[in-house]
Amino acid sequence: MNMDIATVNVLPYEDFVNIFGNVVEKCPIITAAVWSGRPFLNLTALETAISEFIDALPESGKEGILRCHPDLAGRDLQSGTLTRESREEQAGSGMDVLNSAEVSRMARLNEEYKERFGFPFVICARMNDKANILRQLSERCPNERAVERARGIEEVKKICRLRLQDLVLTDSPNKL
Amino acid sequence: MNMDIATVNVLPYEDFVNIFGNVVEKCPIITAAVWSGRPFLNLTALETAISEFIDALPESGKEGILRCHPDLAGRDLQSGTLTRESREEQAGSGMDVLNSAEVSRMARLNEEYKERFGFPFVICARMNDKANILRQLSERCPNERAVERARGIEEVKKICRLRLQDLVLTDSPNKL
Repeated sequence: MNMDIATVNVLPYEDFVNIFGNVVEKCPIITAAVWSGRPFLNLTALETAISEFIDALPESGKEGILRCHPDLAGRDLQSGTLTRESREEQAGSGMDVLNSAEVSRMARLNEEYKERFGFPFVICARMNDKANILRQLSERCPNERAVERARGIEEVKKICRLRLQDLVLTDSPNKL
Repeated sequence: MNMDIATVNVLPYEDFVNIFGNVVEKCPIITAAVWSGRPFLNLTALETAISEFIDALPESGKEGILRCHPDLAGRDLQSGTLTRESREEQAGSGMDVLNSAEVSRMARLNEEYKERFGFPFVICARMNDKANILRQLSERCPNERAVERARGIEEVKKICRLRLQDLVLTDSPNKL
């Protein structure tokens, strides 16, 4: 499905939330909130509205967004309880075909990261391959909490942009 | 399940979000955010943290919360796609045993309300019976949008309080 922005702009909130509710993982409230700001000039305007809503949240709210994300190659992937979007993204970067040593290493690094920061390591899997993800997970672990919170939110926005691009025609003109 | 606050306070964020993620319907980000503010002195302190997080949201965010709520006696109830909490609450107030005239009346009033306000009619079903819900849905429809937004959020907080009380021992002392 790839709709133009004019179609997006006339969606009732229920359809809007059904279609876009997971562009920020498990945070339909964000999508539901920005519906108040329609009509959107184009896809970029919709993306900006989401981004600005996130930026206006208190730091605890940003951490809350991160905490709604699953571990990479973690329990939800193993048990089949990922959202459809996460499943496809993790599979695309090879997270579903790790060997057992890699699974153990990811699990250990994820635990270290969560123990240190109180939120999970978030990275845009579609923009990174397995080696890159493992490297960044190791490298980011010694960072400061505020740095990682900001970095995680940057990644959330990249994930959001790609999910939006799967749903809305890029740079489609506003026909309203 | 009914845990004391000391047990709540030592939960890792993943367990905390799994257990409390739906005390505000489909808004696990709120629960996930207030985890940053633990330890909580008691159940009231946890409830207050949630309430304050909601109050600090922009008006669009409050509307976003309301838009994450299902209609009463609506499509999700008919199709079995309500959250467990909503299903039990709607059943408790008789929303699942309406006759066909009542279902039609609810549907018409819900549509009018959503058309007028851009968010659904939200009421704490456990504190109201069928007659009361139908009456309030009729009576609240002519209100101003800002009045209904505030009123809906009040009801969200009542629903949240009762859902929390199902999970945490009331006024249990902090043993930390």
